[in-house]
Amino acid sequence: MTKSANTMWGGRFAAGPDAIMEAINASIWFDRRLAAQDIAGSRAHAAMLAATGIISDNDAEVIREGLLTVLSEIETGEFPFSTAFEDIHMNVEARLRDLIGEPAGRLHTARSRNDQVAVDFRLWVRDQCDQADAALAALQAALVGQAEAGADWVMPGFTHLQVAQPVTWGHHMLAYVEMFARDRSRFADARARMNLSPLGAAALAGTSFPIDRAMTADALGFDGPMANSLDAVADRDFALEYLAAASICAMHLSRLAEELVIWSSAQFRFVKMSDKWSTGSSIMPQKRNPDAAELIRAKIGRIFGANVALMTVMKGLPLTYSKDMQEDKEQTFDAADNLMLALAAMAGMVGDMTANQDALRLAAATGFSTATDLADWLVRELGLPFREAHHVTGTLVALAEDKGCDLPDLTLADMQAVHADIRDDVFDVLGVENSVASRTSFGGTAPVQVRAQVAHWKEVLK
Amino acid sequence: MTKSANTMWGGRFAAGPDAIMEAINASIWFDRRLAAQDIAGSRAHAAMLAATGIISDNDAEVIREGLLTVLSEIETGEFPFSTAFEDIHMNVEARLRDLIGEPAGRLHTARSRNDQVAVDFRLWVRDQCDQADAALAALQAALVGQAEAGADWVMPGFTHLQVAQPVTWGHHMLAYVEMFARDRSRFADARARMNLSPLGAAALAGTSFPIDRAMTADALGFDGPMANSLDAVADRDFALEYLAAASICAMHLSRLAEELVIWSSAQFRFVKMSDKWSTGSSIMPQKRNPDAAELIRAKIGRIFGANVALMTVMKGLPLTYSKDMQEDKEQTFDAADNLMLALAAMAGMVGDMTANQDALRLAAATGFSTATDLADWLVRELGLPFREAHHVTGTLVALAEDKGCDLPDLTLADMQAVHADIRDDVFDVLGVENSVASRTSFGGTAPVQVRAQVAHWKEVLK
Amino acid sequence: MTKSANTMWGGRFAAGPDAIMEAINASIWFDRRLAAQDIAGSRAHAAMLAATGIISDNDAEVIREGLLTVLSEIETGEFPFSTAFEDIHMNVEARLRDLIGEPAGRLHTARSRNDQVAVDFRLWVRDQCDQADAALAALQAALVGQAEAGADWVMPGFTHLQVAQPVTWGHHMLAYVEMFARDRSRFADARARMNLSPLGAAALAGTSFPIDRAMTADALGFDGPMANSLDAVADRDFALEYLAAASICAMHLSRLAEELVIWSSAQFRFVKMSDKWSTGSSIMPQKRNPDAAELIRAKIGRIFGANVALMTVMKGLPLTYSKDMQEDKEQTFDAADNLMLALAAMAGMVGDMTANQDALRLAAATGFSTATDLADWLVRELGLPFREAHHVTGTLVALAEDKGCDLPDLTLADMQAVHADIRDDVFDVLGVENSVASRTSFGGTAPVQVRAQVAHWKEVLK
Amino acid sequence: MTKSANTMWGGRFAAGPDAIMEAINASIWFDRRLAAQDIAGSRAHAAMLAATGIISDNDAEVIREGLLTVLSEIETGEFPFSTAFEDIHMNVEARLRDLIGEPAGRLHTARSRNDQVAVDFRLWVRDQCDQADAALAALQAALVGQAEAGADWVMPGFTHLQVAQPVTWGHHMLAYVEMFARDRSRFADARARMNLSPLGAAALAGTSFPIDRAMTADALGFDGPMANSLDAVADRDFALEYLAAASICAMHLSRLAEELVIWSSAQFRFVKMSDKWSTGSSIMPQKRNPDAAELIRAKIGRIFGANVALMTVMKGLPLTYSKDMQEDKEQTFDAADNLMLALAAMAGMVGDMTANQDALRLAAATGFSTATDLADWLVRELGLPFREAHHVTGTLVALAEDKGCDLPDLTLADMQAVHADIRDDVFDVLGVENSVASRTSFGGTAPVQVRAQVAHWKEVLK
Repeated sequence: MTKSANTMWGGRFAAGPDAIMEAINASIWFDRRLAAQDIAGSRAHAAMLAATGIISDNDAEVIREGLLTVLSEIETGEFPFSTAFEDIHMNVEARLRDLIGEPAGRLHTARSRNDQVAVDFRLWVRDQCDQADAALAALQAALVGQAEAGADWVMPGFTHLQVAQPVTWGHHMLAYVEMFARDRSRFADARARMNLSPLGAAALAGTSFPIDRAMTADALGFDGPMANSLDAVADRDFALEYLAAASICAMHLSRLAEELVIWSSAQFRFVKMSDKWSTGSSIMPQKRNPDAAELIRAKIGRIFGANVALMTVMKGLPLTYSKDMQEDKEQTFDAADNLMLALAAMAGMVGDMTANQDALRLAAATGFSTATDLADWLVRELGLPFREAHHVTGTLVALAEDKGCDLPDLTLADMQAVHADIRDDVFDVLGVENSVASRTSFGGTAPVQVRAQVAHWKEVLK
Repeated sequence: MTKSANTMWGGRFAAGPDAIMEAINASIWFDRRLAAQDIAGSRAHAAMLAATGIISDNDAEVIREGLLTVLSEIETGEFPFSTAFEDIHMNVEARLRDLIGEPAGRLHTARSRNDQVAVDFRLWVRDQCDQADAALAALQAALVGQAEAGADWVMPGFTHLQVAQPVTWGHHMLAYVEMFARDRSRFADARARMNLSPLGAAALAGTSFPIDRAMTADALGFDGPMANSLDAVADRDFALEYLAAASICAMHLSRLAEELVIWSSAQFRFVKMSDKWSTGSSIMPQKRNPDAAELIRAKIGRIFGANVALMTVMKGLPLTYSKDMQEDKEQTFDAADNLMLALAAMAGMVGDMTANQDALRLAAATGFSTATDLADWLVRELGLPFREAHHVTGTLVALAEDKGCDLPDLTLADMQAVHADIRDDVFDVLGVENSVASRTSFGGTAPVQVRAQVAHWKEVLK
Repeated sequence: MTKSANTMWGGRFAAGPDAIMEAINASIWFDRRLAAQDIAGSRAHAAMLAATGIISDNDAEVIREGLLTVLSEIETGEFPFSTAFEDIHMNVEARLRDLIGEPAGRLHTARSRNDQVAVDFRLWVRDQCDQADAALAALQAALVGQAEAGADWVMPGFTHLQVAQPVTWGHHMLAYVEMFARDRSRFADARARMNLSPLGAAALAGTSFPIDRAMTADALGFDGPMANSLDAVADRDFALEYLAAASICAMHLSRLAEELVIWSSAQFRFVKMSDKWSTGSSIMPQKRNPDAAELIRAKIGRIFGANVALMTVMKGLPLTYSKDMQEDKEQTFDAADNLMLALAAMAGMVGDMTANQDALRLAAATGFSTATDLADWLVRELGLPFREAHHVTGTLVALAEDKGCDLPDLTLADMQAVHADIRDDVFDVLGVENSVASRTSFGGTAPVQVRAQVAHWKEVLK
Repeated sequence: MTKSANTMWGGRFAAGPDAIMEAINASIWFDRRLAAQDIAGSRAHAAMLAATGIISDNDAEVIREGLLTVLSEIETGEFPFSTAFEDIHMNVEARLRDLIGEPAGRLHTARSRNDQVAVDFRLWVRDQCDQADAALAALQAALVGQAEAGADWVMPGFTHLQVAQPVTWGHHMLAYVEMFARDRSRFADARARMNLSPLGAAALAGTSFPIDRAMTADALGFDGPMANSLDAVADRDFALEYLAAASICAMHLSRLAEELVIWSSAQFRFVKMSDKWSTGSSIMPQKRNPDAAELIRAKIGRIFGANVALMTVMKGLPLTYSKDMQEDKEQTFDAADNLMLALAAMAGMVGDMTANQDALRLAAATGFSTATDLADWLVRELGLPFREAHHVTGTLVALAEDKGCDLPDLTLADMQAVHADIRDDVFDVLGVENSVASRTSFGGTAPVQVRAQVAHWKEVLK
């Protein structure tokens, strides 16, 4: 039942049994989103029935043409959906009978609603994997755009929301490019794993008709037929795996959104969201609430909630099909819609936002953020063991704190009083630009590394 | 966004920023369900503003009348909802301005959308507590009806889905009456806890206008105003507690539904669901699939999924209002709709179902289900320690198993060969009717106990 | 199985069946935490058996004494727990037999492990409700202490992490006092609802022995016996309701912890956590990572995860006892331990933290945070409709933004150029101290309101 | 904190701050499970530091030898774990310093605890993927063994727990082999995706030392280094993806376990679990409670609960490392331990269980289970449209029901009275053996198909 259909139940538990049973049982108000998939599946099935001689070529042709008419009626909004026909499959078949008469009765040969809904929903989820991939690529492109512009803008790298070491804006943007790359990879794996056809499993046992499952699988873009008919109608792994991948992706979005909210605060001022992606206040025109970021941050709730919902539904269901499984679709539809919306909004926001380079650099240069650079210099240049270098650095930081200055503001004499071997060239590593420039290890924050990664990703994404 | 609005995003992440922002931001397509609450809140607010002299009596009167007109337009479906006005609050206020002009601009004095939405949603959830209570009472009545009819019908009591001891049908039905009583109690507690008014918290800090929060609280049926304005706009506990209570209730429904599915199987045949609550098969007219029971069993998924969703949304949100919280409503609406539907369907099913007394009794009388009665007899009559009585009983059960009979079919000689003191009256406790009749401890399965409980519940529920 | 016992399974799925079955089946390594409850229950049961003449007074006395010996052995760590005796009930009974011989065999009369474990676990969870209440009271006291000290310290009130209106530190602290009060109320309701005794339900059907369930209920502090024996052994609502209350409480903790993490950042500097509740860095001695706050923020994960786990376990279980339910304890133990730890840590942190009053005030006075005060003044003093007052205020804010100043820095002439009737006394409402002082509506942020609430809470908590 | 350490908090929230902070902060009591991984990572790091000239060959040699000594101490249980050293990394390093002195201080050069824990935990989870794969293969082998034995044993195929069509035991077993194959495939994909090394990311920014990340990656069996240092220390996708795969796998186990519980009931009697995998009752020696199946059914709770827990923890965490992430390990350890245990127990149970062929066949031959065979015959042999064939079949089923017989018991005359063209050879398709034998479509239940699949799987699994 759709949300709006559900609505009518508020306060009406006194409705008669027939109305209640219809309300809980009918799925047409949500499964009509599977219309295109249902018709594609039926057209493939009809062609195969003819090719294998189970129905006549003429019947198949009439059926296939009639189904196109039905599809066209649905796409133009003229289709008379009816609760009496319970679901999308029955609605389509009933309309087909109106349109073409008796041959419609032959379409369902060697098929059942059990394998029919399995193939429809699988095709729908497969399509969502593709759509998520494209949306993620667009978001990656927006992030790479930011990374390219700010490959050498210095900003604080945080742990515990405390300034730890200077990094570059570009490097931070690219961290999310990596996360979203893993999301794409997960959707790709899920897509490959689900890309087998349940069609031909019939009710659950297969069929005695001489069907050609490879032919329908091929026509629908599947890699082949599923190998066990019971599994084919009882399986909803494909939806669960899609939801699991979507949930992790939504988690990544929540982290980026959290950063954007924090960075938009008056205290951080690291970024300015564009007007398009903020909402204002009639009374405070300067106000720029990061509403879109907050909404994106929240989407993990409903997306992962859908994952929990479907996992709970599937827990402990004996084979094969149980009506419980009808609850799979609304959850997946809602999660997919919201994932797509969140990805689109994030791509838009990231593309439009403006980094405040001054605020970023200023924040990076406080908090003794180059202390580890100093320690590394002591190890590298003076040969101190790492743990001893840490101790010397700690002493110098404490000294700077006492003097109310930062590390680069100490004199050489100050330093040598702590460790006599320290030389003048130590100051080369204490500035934030030098610090980031020095982190040239693979995957490090040095602009040269960032630019190499940007080039890599531009190649991947083009 | 409603499901249907979301739908339009399938595959359209390429939509322009304005469309995407509107889609993710606007709430009018779902929060219009709060229209009646919004108008009740505004009417109470206007009356208070006049009573405290903040606006004129005349303005208040005009506002209050105008709001009734708006409500009537909404109820008759004539109201022109508009995404441009983003949410229900703005839609109502804009329409009010159309209807009454300038005084409409005074309604929002000493109020903010933050406390407005908090009061609207709280009223809605409070109403759901009342509706759930009534629906649970109806379900309890259906169960008590079954219990009264079958207070002495013997059936197996199960542990591990293994027959353990005979119990009565009425006793089993009443176990669920107890569960649903706890559910009612939880909804009542949640209702009492949420029944404080956030109205007057304004944006978050309270207001300098001399408002009377007790007056609006009283007018809206609240027990009083909330004591902290920051908490008033930041709190969503009431929705979470409703969802937690609804989830436990849905869990109870899932257990009963599971039993009905199992009992409807050809192997158990304990109950026959009525035609109204089953679906058949065109090809197998005798088929009676327990679809409604399966759908009810599944509802815990989406109801608890909603709980997970909102809990995830609220995790780690700093005070006070964040836009993330806009995700609270769709989850709660959907959970409440489905809870009400499941309760109504379960009440209908339970009321209509027919117990198969023969199958129940037959199942109860197998599996040596009165072995514990025998052991208890040995303790009570012969003074054996419990553990020794268990040992003797085990030997007798093994003997019966060897002989391919049940315990009452053993001879007295068989028994005395195992323990010499066993007397003829032992057979009195070995029949299932005697067994259940003997369990007269408070809360036990004896028909006399069951009838007392039935009488108690009929009194409570009348 | 305990975590440590589980450990041994890493990589050892090749273990023999006996070892695997023992590992998955035995509960003694975690349910021994129920030892005190188990012994209390058995002592009450023995006394009742004697009082009703089911066993002799002498046997009861010997049993009750022997159980105290067992308890003492457990408390001193001398008790020889054994996996062979599977669970705490069998371990205790076996040891009792060693100690007192034959009478031990009479203890289990009119009882079963099903009602025994139900009573043990219920007593344990009831105790956790009491402990949570005390820990929450301690946390409230720490917050009230902060509120009293800073009843008039001005700080920004946030929406969307944007400065919205000035509020007071005390008011913000008290918002959490309200949340934790609701948590206490929820635990109290849960405790009251669970405070009925399952003892006497026996295996599932009650018993034919003339037991007195009211007597054992009373001895164990229950309000009375549960009314249905099947429900008594099949119910785990009490654990689920505890977990639901604990989860909402953990959500509140996560919000406060998030604020403490953000407020500890170099950009906010609103608070300084004490050394005790931070961790440092050997290299950056000034570093003060808010580790405890972060760990508390995370605890909602495992606490709500436990709620999900047990809800999933209970989904669809037919009556009465199924072994699945053995999974109830580890989840509840872990959630309760972590809730107690998080509450204790939070109380410690809050008690020790130091607010940076200067930073708070400075942040409150930026961002035109008194714009709504200005608008309210226009409504109150000049009689403008609210929406018009908003428009005038918006124009003045824009003017101030253009001039690079804040609202109090505009001249009267500036203001009158926008609305001619504005008078000099408007400036009284533009300072943040005046702003907060004016919010005297009940529950508002005015220091006078805050102090009244502090007084109220000190009375409640003393 | 480990469960046992947590234990001490029951009732002790009054403990001093130091004790509370240590309890919430220290991880050594659970992360010591990473000892082998930590030492492997350190040994690889030391070798690389020498190869790149950052430390001397001699220091590297001494470090690597010392680490082997530490590992040996841990494996033999002699290692003195200490809470003072907080975590496994510090415990190992402190002990190394005791053993080898000054060179120990050079090991941590160009490394941080942030990348160190990331590599340790990743290696641990990677190993769990391998272990899950092996355990799943063992379970598949047990199922294939059952399938081979019963490739042609007829049993009912269920939908809605109603008998729908006859299938074969082997076919049913193979449905689970398919599910577990997808699980293996998911673990394999997760393993491949996580198999990149975070080592060398250092604290978060990379390092200025001339490290060779490819060398350490290679030494630890990774496919290469991760490409972004911020992502390397902030990422926990690998644990989440493992948990998601484990959860779906646990869902499959819950379905099979549910079937085993139902099939073990006195009403079904489809299978007999072996003594090893059942528990009995002292009083009812014939009792065979399917405890292991119930416990396995429940494991989805804690495994998916762990997934929820970690997802909740990660929601909204800003980059890079936050202490919240310390909560990742206990959840993953517990989920992995329980998954391995459940897989091992299920493989043992499936291998040992005995199908009751008579009960299976009897159940399959009732309920007009060959009605669709009859309908298909009408389509195939008489050329009826599918929908008309359904109608004729329905009439015949109703006739049989009226006569109290099953379909094969109708006479030819009975049949011809409904449709005159029906011929004697229709009876060939009405027996359950013929029915299953006819379902020869790919993936169908015909023994010939089942045997082909068994052969395929035996090849795959050998």
